[in-house]
Amino acid sequence: MSDSNPITIVIFGGSGDLARRKLFPALFNLYGKEQLPTPFHIVGAASSPRSDEELRTILCKGVMEAAGQDFDEEQWSAFAQQIVYAQIDLTQPRDFARLKEQLQTLEQGSANRLYHLAVDPEYFMPAVNNLQASGLHQADAGWRRLVIEKPFGHDLASAQELNQCIEAVFPEGEVFRIDHYLGKETAQNILFLRFANLIFEPLWNANYIDNVQISVVENVDVGERARYYDHSGVLRDMFQNHLLQLLSLIAMEPPASFDADAVRDEKVKVLKSILPVAIDETVRGQYHGYRQAQYVAADSQTATYAALKVQIDNWRWQGVPFYLRSGKGLAEKSSEIVIEFKRPPHLMFALPPAQKLTPNILYICIQPDEGIHLQFEAKEPGSLQATATVDLEFHYRTSFKDSVLADAYERLLLDAIHGDATLFTRRDGIEAAWRVIDPILQGWQGEDAPPLASYEPGSWGPATADALLARTGRAWRHGCCEHEA
Amino acid sequence: MSDSNPITIVIFGGSGDLARRKLFPALFNLYGKEQLPTPFHIVGAASSPRSDEELRTILCKGVMEAAGQDFDEEQWSAFAQQIVYAQIDLTQPRDFARLKEQLQTLEQGSANRLYHLAVDPEYFMPAVNNLQASGLHQADAGWRRLVIEKPFGHDLASAQELNQCIEAVFPEGEVFRIDHYLGKETAQNILFLRFANLIFEPLWNANYIDNVQISVVENVDVGERARYYDHSGVLRDMFQNHLLQLLSLIAMEPPASFDADAVRDEKVKVLKSILPVAIDETVRGQYHGYRQAQYVAADSQTATYAALKVQIDNWRWQGVPFYLRSGKGLAEKSSEIVIEFKRPPHLMFALPPAQKLTPNILYICIQPDEGIHLQFEAKEPGSLQATATVDLEFHYRTSFKDSVLADAYERLLLDAIHGDATLFTRRDGIEAAWRVIDPILQGWQGEDAPPLASYEPGSWGPATADALLARTGRAWRHGCCEHEA
Repeated sequence: MSDSNPITIVIFGGSGDLARRKLFPALFNLYGKEQLPTPFHIVGAASSPRSDEELRTILCKGVMEAAGQDFDEEQWSAFAQQIVYAQIDLTQPRDFARLKEQLQTLEQGSANRLYHLAVDPEYFMPAVNNLQASGLHQADAGWRRLVIEKPFGHDLASAQELNQCIEAVFPEGEVFRIDHYLGKETAQNILFLRFANLIFEPLWNANYIDNVQISVVENVDVGERARYYDHSGVLRDMFQNHLLQLLSLIAMEPPASFDADAVRDEKVKVLKSILPVAIDETVRGQYHGYRQAQYVAADSQTATYAALKVQIDNWRWQGVPFYLRSGKGLAEKSSEIVIEFKRPPHLMFALPPAQKLTPNILYICIQPDEGIHLQFEAKEPGSLQATATVDLEFHYRTSFKDSVLADAYERLLLDAIHGDATLFTRRDGIEAAWRVIDPILQGWQGEDAPPLASYEPGSWGPATADALLARTGRAWRHGCCEHEA
Repeated sequence: MSDSNPITIVIFGGSGDLARRKLFPALFNLYGKEQLPTPFHIVGAASSPRSDEELRTILCKGVMEAAGQDFDEEQWSAFAQQIVYAQIDLTQPRDFARLKEQLQTLEQGSANRLYHLAVDPEYFMPAVNNLQASGLHQADAGWRRLVIEKPFGHDLASAQELNQCIEAVFPEGEVFRIDHYLGKETAQNILFLRFANLIFEPLWNANYIDNVQISVVENVDVGERARYYDHSGVLRDMFQNHLLQLLSLIAMEPPASFDADAVRDEKVKVLKSILPVAIDETVRGQYHGYRQAQYVAADSQTATYAALKVQIDNWRWQGVPFYLRSGKGLAEKSSEIVIEFKRPPHLMFALPPAQKLTPNILYICIQPDEGIHLQFEAKEPGSLQATATVDLEFHYRTSFKDSVLADAYERLLLDAIHGDATLFTRRDGIEAAWRVIDPILQGWQGEDAPPLASYEPGSWGPATADALLARTGRAWRHGCCEHEA
C-alpha cells in the first residue's frame, strides 16, 4: 500500500449539504494546490437517479459560492472531469455490488480508497455493513479508509455499538472520525502554543490558573436542522465533540511526540480524569421561540444552550474549574478559550480602596478572528501608580498575510489521505466523551434537573449561566471579538 | 512643611543646554497641566550678566522647539512672568548671599525651595558648600531640596567625596540624584510588568531565563560633548548610571511596597550581588574617526563603546549572564532590554534536521517605540508541523492614544516637588554602581586590558562584542525597532 497509488474518494451523501458546502470545495482547493494524489477519482454517491453531469452542476454551485471571486472555471472543468455519480441505497447490498463494479471500471487496477460517510447517522451502520458484505472494505495493493462525520452515536451505548460495527470491518488505524474543530488552525495551534514555547507550560497548572472557559456560541437558530436538533440538543451537538475536544487540547499533559497515538493517548487521559459533573453545576436553556420552529415539539424540553462546570481530577488541574458553554440564538458567532490566571499574590502598588488588580488572561481566539490576546497590566502613562489593562495581541491574518487560512476540511481530508489520524477522534476518545455527557443527559431527565431556562434570541444566554460562575465570585470573559483585526 | 506652600525652583545652570532643552520645557508642560504648585517662582541662575527678559527670550526658544506646533504663546507669557534671572558665580559665597536676598524679596514669606544643579560637575561641591554657607539650605516652614544631575562622581572615591559633602548639608531624604532613564515610562513600567502581573514572575529566574541583554545604543557621535567625553568614556557616561539602573529594575526581588526606600533597598541589593566583572569578559571599542574630533587627544584611549558580561551572584540569577552594551556612533538610537528564555526542554514536533526551536524572547522597548514584544512560536498555517516565529505586541503609543508620553523630566521634577524619591538614585546605590564600574576602569589601564577595538560609525560596534556572546553560543538580539508602530 502506498500513497503514490491512484486514489478514489467515495463520498456517500455526495450531493448533500455537507458535500456541496464543505467537502467538494475543500477537495477542489486541494486540487488547485496540487495536493491531491494523482491520478484521482471522486465518486459522489446518493440515492436519486442522476447523471454525472447533473451531479457536477450541483457541486459547481457550492464550489463557486465557497470560492467567491477566486473561482477558476477552467480549473473546475478539469477537476469536474474526475467526478462521477453513483446511485446508491445505503441499505441495499446489491447497490454496493454495483458500486464495486463501477469503481473497478473507473480505477482499472489497484487504487487506494477513501470512503467518506457524509450521510445521516442512521445510515452509518448499514453502509459499513454493506461495504463489508460487498468486499469493498478489503485492502489490496491499495488501502481502504473510512471517514465518518458526526454525530458519532446518540449516547454511550449507541456510540459503542457503532464502534463495534466499524471495528469489525476496518482496523482502527484506517478509521477517521471527523471533528472539524480539530482541523481549525487555531485548535491545532493550541498544541504548538503550549509545547513549542517555554513560557506557557510553567504557568499551565493549578498554581497559576484560576479557571478556564471554553465558549462556542452561535447567533443562528436551529433553522433547517430543527428535526435533527430537537432529538439531539446542544450537549450532543456541541459538547460531546467540539467542546470536550478543545478542553482536552488545553488540559492534556505534554505528549512524547506529535504522533497520532501519543497525542490521542494524552487527550483520552484528560477525558477519563473528568469528575462526574454535578447536576446542580449544569445550566440548560432554550431560546424563546424555539418551540415555534417547524418539526419542534410544542412542549420540547430540548436544550439549545448549556453551561457546565467541569473538574479535572488530576495533579495539574486540582481545584481549577473548567467552564464550558455553547448555544444557539446567541449574541454572536464566536469560539474562544479563556485562560484566566490568578491575581498576583502581593500588591506592592497603592490602589484605590476596594480596587483589585485585574488578573492576566490569555484569550485563544478560534473564530472569527483567529489569534491570541494576552491581557496584562501596564502602568497608566503619566500616572504615578495607576495600572491599565492592555493587550499583547497576535492575529493570524495579519502575521501570515500571504496565507489564506484553509478551511478545516482541507486539512482533515488531506490528513486522512495521508493516513495521519492525529486530528481525528479515536474510539476510546469518543466513548470517554460520552461517559462525561451521558450522565448529564440522564440527570436532565430526572427529578434534580435544573430548570430549562428561557433566554432571548440575541442575548448571551440564561441568567443562570452567569450565576453558575458568580457562586464562586467568577464571571464569563469575552476578549476576542472586540479586538478583531 | 507642606506641599501647599508657595514653591521656588532655583535652577543653577539656568540658561544652559539642559535647562533650555529639558528642564524649562518640562516645567512649562507641568504648568500647562496645572501640576505645578501655586504660587511658584522659577529662578534661572547663571554666571553671565543678563536681564530677566533676556533669560526668558533664551528659554522661550527651547520651549518652542520642544513644543513644536503645540506651543501656546499666551500660556508661555503667563508662565514666563514667573521666571527671573539671578547672576551667580557658584564659587563665590557673596553671590549666594545676594541670591538669598533676591529669593526673600521674591517669596515675601515662607516657601518651599528646590535647588537644581544643572551645571558642570566641578561646581557641584562649591555650590552645595555655598548653599550651606549662606544658610540657603536651612528649612523653615518650607522645605529645601537638592536635585543633582549626573555625572555623580568620576569614580568611587570622588562619588563618596561628593556624597559626604552633600550629606553634611542636606538630609538624604531631601536629595534627588537624577538618572533620567528612570523617569521614562517604560523603565517605570518594568516594575508594573513584573509585579502587577502574575504571569511573568514565575518565569523570571534562572530556571527559565537563558540570558538578559540590555542595550542602550546611540547613532550620534560625541559631538560637542567631546571635551567632557574624552575624560569620561562610555562606562562612566552610560554604564555606571543608566545601564546598571535598568539592570537592577530587571533583576531585583519584589519589594514589599512601592515606597521609595523599599524599592531602592532591593535595587541596591542587586548591585551589591554583582560579581566582579572579569576583565576578559569586557569589550571596549572606539569608533573610527573619534580621535579627529576637536578636544580629543590624538592618541585617546577613551572607549566610545563597551560591552560587559555581568553575573549576579544570588539564588534567582545563578548562571544567567547579563550582557550590557552601549556606545556612540552606532547604527541607530535605541534602548531595549531583551529577556531570552531557554528553549523548551522537549521537542515533540518533527523539525528538519539541525533545526532547533527558536527560544521565546521578551523585548522591553524603551525607545524609540515604547512597548513590549513577546516573541513566541506558532504553527505555520497550512503546514503540518512547521513553526513560525511571531510576536505578541503591545505599543504604548497605540494603546494609550490620547496620552502623549511625557518627557522623563516632567515626571522627575514633579516627583522631586512632591518629595517622592522612588525614581532617584540613593547614596548607597550610586556607590554600589561605582563598585562595579571602578575595577573595570582600572583593569582597562592594566596589562590584561582588552584591546581597544576600532569600529565603523554606523555599525553595531566591534566584532569582539559579538565574540563575547558567541563564546557560549549566544548572540545579541534586537527586536524592537523593526516592529515600530
